Amino acid sequence: MLKEMSNDAKQLQNELVEFMDNYIYPNEIEVEKFLEEAENRWVIPPVIEELKDKAKEKGLWNLFIPKEYEYSKGLSNYDYAHLCEVMGRSLIAPEIFNCNAPDTGNMEVLMKYGTDAQKKKWLEPLMEGKIRSVFSMTEPQVASSDATNIQASIARDGDEYVINARKWWSTGALDPRCDIAIVMGKTDPDAERYRQQSMILVPFNTPGVEVKRHLNVFGYDHAPQGHAEIHYNNVRVPKENILLGEGRGFEIAQGRLGPGRIHHCMRAIGAAERALELLIKRANEREAFGSKLVEKDTLRQMIAESRIEIEQARLLTLQAANKIDQEGAKAARKEIAMIKVAAPRVSLNVIDRAIEVFGGAGVSQDTPLAEHYANARTLRIVDGPDQVHLRDIAKLEIREQL
Amino acid sequence: MLKEMSNDAKQLQNELVEFMDNYIYPNEIEVEKFLEEAENRWVIPPVIEELKDKAKEKGLWNLFIPKEYEYSKGLSNYDYAHLCEVMGRSLIAPEIFNCNAPDTGNMEVLMKYGTDAQKKKWLEPLMEGKIRSVFSMTEPQVASSDATNIQASIARDGDEYVINARKWWSTGALDPRCDIAIVMGKTDPDAERYRQQSMILVPFNTPGVEVKRHLNVFGYDHAPQGHAEIHYNNVRVPKENILLGEGRGFEIAQGRLGPGRIHHCMRAIGAAERALELLIKRANEREAFGSKLVEKDTLRQMIAESRIEIEQARLLTLQAANKIDQEGAKAARKEIAMIKVAAPRVSLNVIDRAIEVFGGAGVSQDTPLAEHYANARTLRIVDGPDQVHLRDIAKLEIREQL
Amino acid sequence: MLKEMSNDAKQLQNELVEFMDNYIYPNEIEVEKFLEEAENRWVIPPVIEELKDKAKEKGLWNLFIPKEYEYSKGLSNYDYAHLCEVMGRSLIAPEIFNCNAPDTGNMEVLMKYGTDAQKKKWLEPLMEGKIRSVFSMTEPQVASSDATNIQASIARDGDEYVINARKWWSTGALDPRCDIAIVMGKTDPDAERYRQQSMILVPFNTPGVEVKRHLNVFGYDHAPQGHAEIHYNNVRVPKENILLGEGRGFEIAQGRLGPGRIHHCMRAIGAAERALELLIKRANEREAFGSKLVEKDTLRQMIAESRIEIEQARLLTLQAANKIDQEGAKAARKEIAMIKVAAPRVSLNVIDRAIEVFGGAGVSQDTPLAEHYANARTLRIVDGPDQVHLRDIAKLEIREQL
Amino acid sequence: MLKEMSNDAKQLQNELVEFMDNYIYPNEIEVEKFLEEAENRWVIPPVIEELKDKAKEKGLWNLFIPKEYEYSKGLSNYDYAHLCEVMGRSLIAPEIFNCNAPDTGNMEVLMKYGTDAQKKKWLEPLMEGKIRSVFSMTEPQVASSDATNIQASIARDGDEYVINARKWWSTGALDPRCDIAIVMGKTDPDAERYRQQSMILVPFNTPGVEVKRHLNVFGYDHAPQGHAEIHYNNVRVPKENILLGEGRGFEIAQGRLGPGRIHHCMRAIGAAERALELLIKRANEREAFGSKLVEKDTLRQMIAESRIEIEQARLLTLQAANKIDQEGAKAARKEIAMIKVAAPRVSLNVIDRAIEVFGGAGVSQDTPLAEHYANARTLRIVDGPDQVHLRDIAKLEIREQL
Repeated sequence: MLKEMSNDAKQLQNELVEFMDNYIYPNEIEVEKFLEEAENRWVIPPVIEELKDKAKEKGLWNLFIPKEYEYSKGLSNYDYAHLCEVMGRSLIAPEIFNCNAPDTGNMEVLMKYGTDAQKKKWLEPLMEGKIRSVFSMTEPQVASSDATNIQASIARDGDEYVINARKWWSTGALDPRCDIAIVMGKTDPDAERYRQQSMILVPFNTPGVEVKRHLNVFGYDHAPQGHAEIHYNNVRVPKENILLGEGRGFEIAQGRLGPGRIHHCMRAIGAAERALELLIKRANEREAFGSKLVEKDTLRQMIAESRIEIEQARLLTLQAANKIDQEGAKAARKEIAMIKVAAPRVSLNVIDRAIEVFGGAGVSQDTPLAEHYANARTLRIVDGPDQVHLRDIAKLEIREQL
Repeated sequence: MLKEMSNDAKQLQNELVEFMDNYIYPNEIEVEKFLEEAENRWVIPPVIEELKDKAKEKGLWNLFIPKEYEYSKGLSNYDYAHLCEVMGRSLIAPEIFNCNAPDTGNMEVLMKYGTDAQKKKWLEPLMEGKIRSVFSMTEPQVASSDATNIQASIARDGDEYVINARKWWSTGALDPRCDIAIVMGKTDPDAERYRQQSMILVPFNTPGVEVKRHLNVFGYDHAPQGHAEIHYNNVRVPKENILLGEGRGFEIAQGRLGPGRIHHCMRAIGAAERALELLIKRANEREAFGSKLVEKDTLRQMIAESRIEIEQARLLTLQAANKIDQEGAKAARKEIAMIKVAAPRVSLNVIDRAIEVFGGAGVSQDTPLAEHYANARTLRIVDGPDQVHLRDIAKLEIREQL
Repeated sequence: MLKEMSNDAKQLQNELVEFMDNYIYPNEIEVEKFLEEAENRWVIPPVIEELKDKAKEKGLWNLFIPKEYEYSKGLSNYDYAHLCEVMGRSLIAPEIFNCNAPDTGNMEVLMKYGTDAQKKKWLEPLMEGKIRSVFSMTEPQVASSDATNIQASIARDGDEYVINARKWWSTGALDPRCDIAIVMGKTDPDAERYRQQSMILVPFNTPGVEVKRHLNVFGYDHAPQGHAEIHYNNVRVPKENILLGEGRGFEIAQGRLGPGRIHHCMRAIGAAERALELLIKRANEREAFGSKLVEKDTLRQMIAESRIEIEQARLLTLQAANKIDQEGAKAARKEIAMIKVAAPRVSLNVIDRAIEVFGGAGVSQDTPLAEHYANARTLRIVDGPDQVHLRDIAKLEIREQL
Repeated sequence: MLKEMSNDAKQLQNELVEFMDNYIYPNEIEVEKFLEEAENRWVIPPVIEELKDKAKEKGLWNLFIPKEYEYSKGLSNYDYAHLCEVMGRSLIAPEIFNCNAPDTGNMEVLMKYGTDAQKKKWLEPLMEGKIRSVFSMTEPQVASSDATNIQASIARDGDEYVINARKWWSTGALDPRCDIAIVMGKTDPDAERYRQQSMILVPFNTPGVEVKRHLNVFGYDHAPQGHAEIHYNNVRVPKENILLGEGRGFEIAQGRLGPGRIHHCMRAIGAAERALELLIKRANEREAFGSKLVEKDTLRQMIAESRIEIEQARLLTLQAANKIDQEGAKAARKEIAMIKVAAPRVSLNVIDRAIEVFGGAGVSQDTPLAEHYANARTLRIVDGPDQVHLRDIAKLEIREQL
């Protein structure tokens, strides 16, 4: 590697890989079967909680916490990126290590901006994996790439704020453990463009919080977390629940983006590595037209192209992580935008090749491939389609060159 | 157009388009909602049967029947291809017009090879849309592109055949109306390679027919039809149920392929047209960064590329259909293999662009896009991955040139 | 085929194919060798004139002339497109049949708008292949896709027009037989946008016509025709030399575009067919790693993909030609824009694959591949890059759909 | 960056960049013009020798020499890779810094295996840039990817070797300064497969060395170096001219490959950076349809995609260079094969986009784009087409995974 991980990170990586082999992969089917047979899919499979305990016990817990906070393992973004890749290989893994979105982002926001009381009430149980949280930002009527355009209203009324909003893609909202939401909306529609928005903490059982429906991703409901459309109807919370201060919502949102994209992209690369591994294994087991698939040149071409793509996307993502470590997320804007485009594409390409090799098993529940594909495809949409990021990259490039 | 449709086909096309507008699109959501709320998803939404009656009444029924058979509307493959495109625009449409797979292929087999008794028992109710059927060919352990390799056993025992098989991707098996299966398997494992396989009729309520589980396609269960893994455990049927004769299975399978692929490919093109239509409509409604999406050059590029791809794939498919009409399916082998590669690819490209433009709505149940995508992706696998067809095309091309 | 050619066209096609086999391909190397050894490359190899005589004698001459004109063979655009494909297989062919650009377009302009005197002086010798002509439209400082933007001045002065212009990509200007140019420029800069431009006939030996330099295309000088930068310095011609009338230049330019693009695109498809043929032949002759290249799956994939792409591009182009025949070039605008994008791309893809298979021979003068590639790449630029055509296609598509 | 260059390398990089700006780019046209006007193109433009003196004087000379040799600047492969990128931006640059192929590879072979006498006679003048050299390996009848298959004969006859060979793509053979060739051929056709080949030094003025013709790359003759077909007809050289020993030819060839590919790939990336820079500059100067090209979204998309591709290819190449430094070329085989596929592809993509933006100027001699394109295309063929490298990558990947 061009740059070594820290020794701590290497050690954690080894332990994670071992944990995945011993506990995660063997339980993927069980989790799916539990949900398949459950009357109500919005229930946590017991094995999930057992695995969480085991991960906690082994110290593979809350690895995401940035260096500057208490409880952090002291990992840099560059270090943690490698761990994200490992976790990304299984769709059930991030939750087991308490490293799943949007909880990680929400926890970091609470670490940064929460009062002691808020931390006690929500950050601690989140860090212990006892409750789950929601991040309510995206709105059905607004292009998600344009955060300044969010329409939700957060209106001050005496000692309270009154929230009226129609949000969707609030991930985790159907989880029975969901206890708290961070909602983004306008406190001052007349303020300067980047000062109109605020973020506020909304206890999930507050009257007026209405989970309207769950949203599928391709045909997946992503139970038991799920993605929800939530209507906030005259929801009242104490004025202290505002985060960082009125008009600071855009700033908080921006701060989440950089590291969050590193995590997403490295997970996507992990999914690609898993797909390539499955592809090769399958190709070694199947025969067609008189020889093993793995002996065929066309199949080898698929393997080689996948390896080339994965290596490049991983290097690009690690470079972005490293730049955040060294110069901060703002300086790394171009790099972060680049991985947002490059990594999910590569992941989709590799997974698609694996699907091709698996045939029917590849699109069905018999492999994790189709679900990984659906996730990677969705990642291309989350916080803006490729076009938006390409625009940003070009703008920065042109500015540097001209 | 390079070649005009027959006047009858044009008339039917207009009527189909009108029917789609008036009855199909407006009911897509209702069908989905019915299933979403149903306790048991393997139940036919009443609106489906109502629409079938309406289609029958309007003469938009069994349009697939080839010229040479009774009840046929006299359409050529070239003519019918255009109608398939229209039906392919909605996932619920083919069933409404009694033109869905695998029933169409099964009906044609019965028309061709069925005895009068078999026709009475199964063909007639199939043609009336009263029962549904299954085609059990693919096996989990066998590359689906290599039909000679199928392992199921169909063993003669006195006046009966005893079937032992493990089949999957038996579409329609979970439909409560499913009444008959055509099963492919080996009657003589020692015969010459293309004479080992036979096809046999298996009433679906015969003891030993066990629907093990349903298979998802990218998370979609495709209720209420579904795709099943079926185990045939010592299933006994009268010897008369053999189709065409022992050792003729491969031949029957081949005969289905050509027209079947035309249908699949034209439906995939219909799905692409629908996606492009939705894309343009959406782009005309949404704004981002100060102007309508439809005004943006990058979006226009997506539209233009889609149009170029669709036109080419449609022409190629129509050319294949026309060649089947004029020279027969065998002479059109190369053309048929080409569309199997080209049409689903184009469909995937166009649908993917539409998903990009719709963002979250594109991957969710709020548009038919993700499900169309999943179907088109699966079409690339059905009867062999692209590699297999590319091999065939090259073999024929090389043979012609050298 | 979806639509048959006329019997006359079929006959001509057969004769052309035979002529190519007997006279064109065997002389490609000789032409190149002649020029390689010539002290002055801007000289016509004698074999060219011999072959022209032979083609004329066999009636394979001026096949491009549209039906409505005298001397026409009565071919439709659809018919002639097939012949263009054949000629496009060799870079020296079009000239041999007196069907090369820009002479064909220039002859058509003269047929349409020339006076009897002009026809006698320039059209007749052009049709006999005795002189050659130039079309001076593009300017170095102006995006070639935007014809309204051309800056050349054509100023009336008494009974003369005075032309001042800096033109480039004037193909054929270095040919020693070049005798006449059609120059486009502004007669009235203050007129309505599409009425500012005119076209005028400029005898090539008029004082002030200065061929500044020749332009290479990927290192090729395209001798003995060449592409030139020409400066027109106070060039005076009689006022009668104006074509069709002042302000009609844009209209004439538009009229050339449709059929011209059909010709270019079909020639590009012919080049692709030639490349595929060479690829297969080479792959059948070469061995690597223990077997013939033609036996390898990856190579077969290249062959199959090429066949799929060529078929589609040809169908699209033929459809455009047919639409021009049936509804006119204006109605076929979208189709014409589509082929301008699709056909050269396919040609580039297929030729590139052939280069890959030929290795060193593929990029060198030992095959016509690299030069065909350079031409096809240039075709993507001629009258505007892809982006411009994609814009037009999208505009027309959106207009139809919304 | 993930890994910093050494301070020396950074310093040299800065100096190189400055030299390029001051002396290389401004003289590109002059060199071309000199050759254009020369009666004989196989003559060295005087400005080349002047620039060489200047480079030598500034210490920008022989930067390629690996650490372990005398005169080396002590640069690692990782360090030198960055300098190659800078030099690769101009086609005339590598020669100026005495870092052009095949001289660098030949010098390294002489450093490693040459006797003192050979070093004095050929290495010293090569290092001073006084003579040039040829590497004669590839043969017209043999797939260049399969070095074991080379047919040239090097037969021992008393105290001499007699060489009979037909070689091509011997770069530099037309250079008037060419003084020495390294020829690969079989000394023992019956030996074990990898021991049949040897390399031998052949003074270029030895009787029997016949430069048959030069080979073009697309239409470029690459004067004054050129690529030649050379026939070695009973060429006799002293037995001491054998390099390393009989049967060691394959081993020497392998040793050249790793670092050589790093150089080629980094130069290709340099060409891509140059193309992107030209593209942006041009887009900032041109207008079409009412705004600067650089303002258009489609153009920005091209810029962003180029940046994403370049970054990834550079990281991959640097990673390969670093692995050679740390673990040796053999351990880095997969990485080296990957860059051979990835880097020229990216270079072609970016240059092609620049050509699209430049239009006619892009394919002509008015920009270096088309020639860079031709070179990058050729790089995809040099020592084997992509398919061969993809095979190798897959083989290594499968070996690691299974």
